[in-house]
This record gives sequence, C-alpha cells and structure tokens, in this order.
Amino acid sequence: MRASQIFIPTLKETPAEAELVSHQLLLRGGFIRRLASGLYTWMPLGLRVLRKVERIVREEMDRSGAQEVLMPVVQPAELWQESGRWEKYGPELLRLKDRHQRDFCLGPTHEEVISDLARREIHSYKQLPVNFYQIQTKFRDEIRPRFGLMRGREFIMKDAYSFHVDHASLEITYQTMYDAYQRTFTRLGLDFRAVEADNGAIGGKRSHEFHVLADSGEDAIVSCDHCDYAANMEKASSPAKAAPAEAPLEAARVQTPGIRTVAEQAAMLGISSSQIVKTVLVVAGEQPVMLLLRGDDELNLIKAAHALEVDEVRMATPEEAESATGAPLGFIGPKDLKTSIRVLADHRALNVGNFSTGANEMDTHWVNLNWDRDLSCPDSADLRNVRAGDPCPHCSTGTLGIRRGIEVGHVFQLGQVYSERMKITVLDESGRDATVTMGCYGIGVSRVVAAAVEQHFDERGIIWPASLTPFDVGIVAINARKFPEVAAAAQALHDRLEQAGFNVLLDDRDERPGVQFATMDLIGLPHRVVVSDKVLAQNVWEYRARRASENTLVNEAELMDRLNASSPVH
Amino acid sequence: MRASQIFIPTLKETPAEAELVSHQLLLRGGFIRRLASGLYTWMPLGLRVLRKVERIVREEMDRSGAQEVLMPVVQPAELWQESGRWEKYGPELLRLKDRHQRDFCLGPTHEEVISDLARREIHSYKQLPVNFYQIQTKFRDEIRPRFGLMRGREFIMKDAYSFHVDHASLEITYQTMYDAYQRTFTRLGLDFRAVEADNGAIGGKRSHEFHVLADSGEDAIVSCDHCDYAANMEKASSPAKAAPAEAPLEAARVQTPGIRTVAEQAAMLGISSSQIVKTVLVVAGEQPVMLLLRGDDELNLIKAAHALEVDEVRMATPEEAESATGAPLGFIGPKDLKTSIRVLADHRALNVGNFSTGANEMDTHWVNLNWDRDLSCPDSADLRNVRAGDPCPHCSTGTLGIRRGIEVGHVFQLGQVYSERMKITVLDESGRDATVTMGCYGIGVSRVVAAAVEQHFDERGIIWPASLTPFDVGIVAINARKFPEVAAAAQALHDRLEQAGFNVLLDDRDERPGVQFATMDLIGLPHRVVVSDKVLAQNVWEYRARRASENTLVNEAELMDRLNASSPVH
Repeated sequence: MRASQIFIPTLKETPAEAELVSHQLLLRGGFIRRLASGLYTWMPLGLRVLRKVERIVREEMDRSGAQEVLMPVVQPAELWQESGRWEKYGPELLRLKDRHQRDFCLGPTHEEVISDLARREIHSYKQLPVNFYQIQTKFRDEIRPRFGLMRGREFIMKDAYSFHVDHASLEITYQTMYDAYQRTFTRLGLDFRAVEADNGAIGGKRSHEFHVLADSGEDAIVSCDHCDYAANMEKASSPAKAAPAEAPLEAARVQTPGIRTVAEQAAMLGISSSQIVKTVLVVAGEQPVMLLLRGDDELNLIKAAHALEVDEVRMATPEEAESATGAPLGFIGPKDLKTSIRVLADHRALNVGNFSTGANEMDTHWVNLNWDRDLSCPDSADLRNVRAGDPCPHCSTGTLGIRRGIEVGHVFQLGQVYSERMKITVLDESGRDATVTMGCYGIGVSRVVAAAVEQHFDERGIIWPASLTPFDVGIVAINARKFPEVAAAAQALHDRLEQAGFNVLLDDRDERPGVQFATMDLIGLPHRVVVSDKVLAQNVWEYRARRASENTLVNEAELMDRLNASSPVH
Repeated sequence: MRASQIFIPTLKETPAEAELVSHQLLLRGGFIRRLASGLYTWMPLGLRVLRKVERIVREEMDRSGAQEVLMPVVQPAELWQESGRWEKYGPELLRLKDRHQRDFCLGPTHEEVISDLARREIHSYKQLPVNFYQIQTKFRDEIRPRFGLMRGREFIMKDAYSFHVDHASLEITYQTMYDAYQRTFTRLGLDFRAVEADNGAIGGKRSHEFHVLADSGEDAIVSCDHCDYAANMEKASSPAKAAPAEAPLEAARVQTPGIRTVAEQAAMLGISSSQIVKTVLVVAGEQPVMLLLRGDDELNLIKAAHALEVDEVRMATPEEAESATGAPLGFIGPKDLKTSIRVLADHRALNVGNFSTGANEMDTHWVNLNWDRDLSCPDSADLRNVRAGDPCPHCSTGTLGIRRGIEVGHVFQLGQVYSERMKITVLDESGRDATVTMGCYGIGVSRVVAAAVEQHFDERGIIWPASLTPFDVGIVAINARKFPEVAAAAQALHDRLEQAGFNVLLDDRDERPGVQFATMDLIGLPHRVVVSDKVLAQNVWEYRARRASENTLVNEAELMDRLNASSPVH
C-alpha cells in the first residue's frame, strides 16, 4: 500500500494529555485519536494492529475448542439484579434507561447474559462442557480514564465463559485455557508472565493473571529466580522463617513522647524497624480487629480479608482505632489490652524477639518484649506483602523478585457463584438436577496493543513485534518526484514483496528523507528498505531493521532472507 | 467440524414471538437467540454467517479504496448539539449520562464523530478525497422492535463517510461506492435492486437505496419493465399524460347528504373516482395548504414537502382543515374558496374534465366542473404515489411495476449539511478556506443475514446462498454408533473435503436419520452428503443439493464437481 492511500496523521509534538509512552506514541503515530475522555477512534493504522491481535486470539480460542458467539452490548437490568451485581457493581457500571424507562446497562462483562443463555439452552450433562467466547466492545465508566487505551472507558475484550457438570471438568478446561493463553501471548510476541492471582470476594478456586512485563506496569508481580513460581502482589506469599534465636533481654516500658510512626519509634529507641511489632487497626465486616505486623512489613488487605473470612477489610479510622482499643493512637499494642478486641498476627511478627510495641498509654512503648514470656501468642496468618529477596514459597533455594506488569489476561474459576444465583442446572448422569460449575477467561484485546508498545519502543518511536506490526516492511522512496526510476523501482519492489506475502507500506510522499525516516521509525515497522538513485546505481537495496543502528546494503535475495527470518509464528 | 463440537440449539416449534420467516427460521435453526426486546445474541452458527457478510463487505470496501477505522459506540452529546440532531433526532436516539452527569448517546450513526475527526485532521485539499468506513455495532431505540434482526435495537452496520473538495469529486466517489455495492450484493448471492431514493430533509443531491427483493419486504419499490429505471415509492414518478379530450358538460351543484369519502361520493353520483378531484388539507411548516389530487390517487407526503419547500408536511386535523377553509369536512373544494388558503394540485388533477369536487357547503358537491371554464388552474406539482401500470418517466414505452423490497444499503450525497454545521473546511488549491462536501454509504450487515433468509427458504428451512452459508457441506452419518465403518468413512470424507477447502459440518449425533435430515434442511447448507452402510456397500455417496427433491448417488469425483460448481464468486 502506498502512504498516499492510507491516512496516517502523525504528530511531531507529544500531546500534553498523554503520560504513558504507549499513549504518546499511538497518538503521535496516528494509530488512535481521542473522541472524548476514555473514548478513542481506531485510525487505519491502529485498526490493522488491533485486527492482528484479534486474529491471533480468535485462532487460539478456536484451536482450544471454544465456540465464538456475539452478545449484545446493552444488557437488561433484570439479569444484573438476579446476580446481585446491579447494586454491588458501583458507578463503573454505566446504567441507562430506554424510551420505555426500562433499566439497562452497558456491559462491562457478560457473566449474566451468558448465564441466562446457558440456563435456557443447556439442560443435560451431555451438552457439557461447553466454552463460549466473544470478541466485543465493552464499557466501564472509569472515574478518571487515562493512559489512552490502557484504561479507557470503551474497550475491546475477548471474554469466554465455560460451563461444566463438575469441578474436575472445569479443571481440564481451565488448563486448556491457560495453555491457549500461553500460546496466544507467545504468538503476540510479548514478554509476559502468568501469575497466580487471588479470586477475591467472588469465590472460586483458582485464578491466574497474564502480565506483560513493562516498567510502566501498574501491577507488582512477584516471581522466583529459581523455580517457576509467580504470583501477583495480592496473592504472593513467602514462608516466615524463624529468626536466629536471640538471648531474651529484660522487658521495660520507656517514654516515647510524640512518637507516631514506626520510623520515629525506631529512631528514638535506636533499634531497627524489624525489631518492632506494629499494630494496624482494621474493620472486618462490622468488627474492629487488631493486626500485628513486623515494623518493616506492609499489610495486604486481601490476605487479611481471607484470614478473617470476610469479603472486605478496610483500615479503621483514628477514632475507630482508639475506641476499639481504649488506647491512644501511636501507642496501641497487644500487651495488657484494655478491651476484648480480636488480635491476629502475621506469621513473621511472631518470629521477632526482644521487640518493641505500644504500651496502650500515651507517650509510652514497650521494649524487649518476648512472646510467651511477656504476652501470649495470638493466632497468626499470612498478612504481609512479600518483598524482593524473600524466600520462595515453592522451592527451597530461590528468592523472590518483584517486577512491574500490565495485566492483559485473566483465567478464573468462577465455581458456582453465578450458577447458584441464576439457577443454572442440568440433569446429571443419574438424572438429578446439578448446579453447573463455571470458568471465565478474559483478554484485554485493545489493551494488548498499548502493552505491546510499552514493551517495545525506543526514543524514535514504536518497535512492533512481527506479529502485530501494521505493515511488515516500509519502503522509503527518496526524491521519487525528481527520479522517476526511483519511483518505478520502489513500486516494483513493493509489488514483488506483496506478491511474496508481506504487507508493505511504500512511502511515496513528496517529503524530505529525514521526515520519511522519522515517520517509519515512529510507526515502528520492523523492516525498512530505502530506494534512492544511489543504491539503484549499485544494484542493491539499503536495509535496516528497526532495532538496528546501521544500514546494510543487500541484494534482493539477502533482503528476502532478512524479512523471512523475523516472520511471526503461526 | 463435527456437530458435537458446535452448539446448534435447533427448535422444533416456531416461536410465537416471531412473525417473519427469517425471524422464525433463524431462531429455529439456532442462529440467534433473543436476550431482550430487539437485542439478540449471535450463536456460533449465526456468527459464521454474519462474518461472511462482514468479510465480503470489507473486501469490497477495501477494493474501492475506502479506509477502515473503528469509532466508539458511545458519543458525546456536544457533537450532536453542534449538528442540531440532539434535539431533532427523537426518542430513537438512546441518550444517557456518565458518572459525571455528562450527556452521551449510543450511536445510531456516526456523521458527527467522523465530522469531528475530519475537521481536526484534514486541513488541505491535498488530503482529499478520503473515504472512511467501519463495521460496527449501532443502537436505535425502536419503539416496537420486531422481526428479529430486521428491526432490532442493536445491530451491525457498515457505515462509510467520504470527504471532498468539491461536488465533482463526490460524484466520482459516489459512483465508486455505487459500483462497490453492486459487487457486494452480487457476491452475497442476493437478488437485489438499486433504486433512486429521496434525499429528504437532510438535503444533498442524489441517493440510492439497495433493496433485497422479497415478498415480505416493508418497502414498495418501483421499476420499469422496459428500461433500467427504478426508484422507491417516495421518489418514483410517472408523467401525467393528458386525458383524451371530453366534451364539457354543464356544471351543477348537487345535494350529497352525509358523504364523507371519495368512494361514497363516486357511488352516489354514479361516476368513477378518477372523475373526482379530491382535496387533502395538510400543514406545511406552520401553514395550511389545500392539495388537490385525482380521486383515485394517493398523496405522497415527501413529494408534497419538496413541492412546498419545507422539511416536513403533515396531514391537517379535521379542526385545522375546517378552520383553514371555512368549509365543512367532506365538502371542501377549490371553487369559490372562502379563505385565502394556498392551493397546489397534482399534475394529474388538472387533466380531469367534467370533474366533481366539494362545494364548500354542507352536503353539497359540484359535478361537471372544468378547469379554466369554472375555476382557474392552480399551481401543480408531482404529489402522488405512482401505481403499477403507470408509464415510465424515463423511457417512452415501458410501464412501472411495484415489488416489495428490504432495504439493505444506502448511498447518499450529504453535500455540505454537516460540514457547514460543524465547520469542516480545508485550504483549497488557491489557498482559500473551502467547506468540504460529504457522502455517506451504509450497509445493514446484520439485516443482510435476515434479508437473505427472506429470499432463500422453503417449507423445510433456510437455503443459504453459497457465499453466506455457515458450512458449505453437511455430511450425515447414518447409524454411526451401530456401524463404525460409517463413522470412519464419514470422518474421512469430512477430512478430505476440508482439505479441499470446503467448510464441512459432520452430523455425528446419535439421532434418527429423520432428525438428522430435518436439521440439515433447517439450517440450510447448500450440499448434503449421506454416508450409510448401504451407500458404502456400493462405494458411492448419496448427494442432494438443498434445493433438489431427489438424492443422487455419486462417486467422489462427481461429488467434488458438484461442490465446486456452486462455489461463491470472489
């Protein structure tokens, strides 16, 4: 295709609205344009990339035995009321009324719709398992849409929902989907990691997130440097190894006027923060709970909710904390409690000897406390975020590292949450009604485009993976107006490469070579071929891979070899 | 693909909700399922058909030089306020508010969004002409969604918008689109007609609708039996030939007590309704107007609006009619008017001699009036709907026929309506600001699926055109559980046909042959091959084309010939 036949509105300046590199480069390269907050139009070049993502996702879903359907964007409220999410979902669910004042929403996800379909159409275990997927426009009314495609309001998802007669069948499909995702993201040319994730309030047993690794990623993901253990921060754990035994010192109350933080406490007492047991007051359900953590550890609210067996745990307000403990904020501690508040410790907090903690009196802390000797051990659980360097929970030798990731996929065992609420039953082999078991599997199709850019760029622009590039090869015809033989040779090369199966963009614009090169670098095609009167005289082409810094003169056979060498996997 | 791998929930009974054949058969064949009023899920089989329509439409749009983009479904109200359509569009425009209480709508069409894009990105005549298209989900809040996909609320459109520096350029692209639509609907295997259409209130110069011919069509389309003239009923015209001269008779007032209708008037007076000049009172803008038509002709409100140079004409209420004429309803006439009301006649009304009309007095009509002798000729225009048998306006010999059509495409010269309202200008060749000229071009992609069924079915089910069928061939394995050699032979044939490039559905279900045949007929695959122990013994296949009534025994080479003979055009 000639550049004059495709609308590529590149920008010289970086748009002020764009923070993330992917947002900047996709705007600058003319891949997308903003219509309104969180709403983007896919321009011709961007749509070519999006379609490539869609095709790979579709091929791998089909290969896995999933069946493609297409559900409506607009969904009736009744189904969401049945599942209980109409009230629960919050303002990200865009609610609307039709002309008859009936309630609907724009689908951010399709569990309700597919569940309704399943209960109408599936009646026997013989129809199971079945896995339906769609690639479809979704809407989520983000409070602050930002980062371009990364967190837009309207976006494109591949969502799949599987139905099973029992959990064993779900496990098989779950693994099939996990494998399909591995193949999908590999074919997309992305450096990614599958990590264990928490199933949260929705229940279900297992879940994995797929993250594209990028420094700009919003999520912290944890992995072992020795084995294949990987989890997101919500889920990652590390064994609490007992600290080396330390001779118990004499416990004492000390004056610590004005102390409010662990850091201040450590500094005033001349100890490490790891020698402090800090208290964190939370509210679980309706009940206040005192959590104990080592001073240098960070509370993980998700783990606390699991340990306390509630849907959600939140931090207590200062007033709630003082009222629940009868002690002044900054000086609350587990020894000599004035109230009957529930206490739960992180495992690691119980491994600290000679520790300091609040004395439940203004301006007073304990030092050199020891569990059992000075106060009894409370129940304990895993409550902390892991840290880089922590030991791996799976292998005995590795240590954990932390990297940044962009979540692009999620496989999730829903279990019977929806099928119970929406009453999806089938006759099982013995002729009895059985509630079905479900899984769901998402890929952020439009987000993949942004994530790929976050992982593949340099100061000159995007560097598309071979499987995603809008064109495989860019041909730059230099001074084609002045040299008709250059224009003719470039067009002939374009035609031969297209004939050989490559998508080719021929820059036939009447622009300075510098502008032409800058455009090719910005839009990120993997291969560039320059046609000029100079190289024509030598009967060669001037080739440069997008990642290379130098040009190479090649004959056409060599050029073909280089193009073929980086063809995407199928 | 084996039938056990694809979910095809066929129904024996015709769903009560479905009136149209396409709605019935698409539900019964398991192609679609209803989620809510006017909202349908595309099941695996239906989606295969939809994708085929999409692919053909996309290929022909690309071939025509149009560039594919993808715009958001959710559109900001500001743009619709700018174009003036926020107020004007009526309740079919589904309006909604986001979490910040900002107004949006679900796009029923995208003139505003593409106009906004164009004015931001296009600045010079050198960037023109350009034609952007998308294949996208749209929403129209129909008051009574019905007929399944034919008039749903959520539907899939191909919409294209072209931009030009002048009208001459628009004419070229308009013709290119017209030709692309001819190719598209031909490739889709549909019997269709392109007809001239009215541009309506929106202005612009030319417009054509593309109709699939089907007895169930909502629209009347008019065509000549001799030349290629064709138009929709709103637009179609016919020359008003002068009636043979008749000797003028003596005019008289006659008593016609209780007469209200043309038919009653003709009966009481013993004349033909073609000898009556009837009055129709309408309101054009704010003004009442008296229209005159031959008694047997039907008013065309669109033509009246054009003739009166207003956006819209409506019928006057009885009160408005009597107050505007000072005469009693049923007895209003153009002679001896009591008020200064504007009068406009259809051309044909002026060709009637010795006519009867109301006398502007209760229970009184004139008979034997003649223009010029008894009252002066008013202005005249084309105001009537044509009728079958009318002479063709283009050729001298043909007569017009009327058929029913389903509108599936529309090409439309928008002119400068949107570009003026939304201020889309470019620098022209002489460096001056020029308002761009626009065209728009739609295809009802999901409606095509229903229209194809309306045109291709019999009492047993759908008969898909080769280009739209979800599978090219259906193989029915008879008693495959009992005869493993049948199962094996059917599977091997399936594999060979797939290898040869056909999409094959193998019915490997454990069902009676009658059920298997009924399913194949219902879902409408063009070719059926039966594999049974009997035919295996003869070393042949039992073949039947969907439209045929008899089976034929064929060897495999003959089978291939038959399959290849009906492959779709590319």
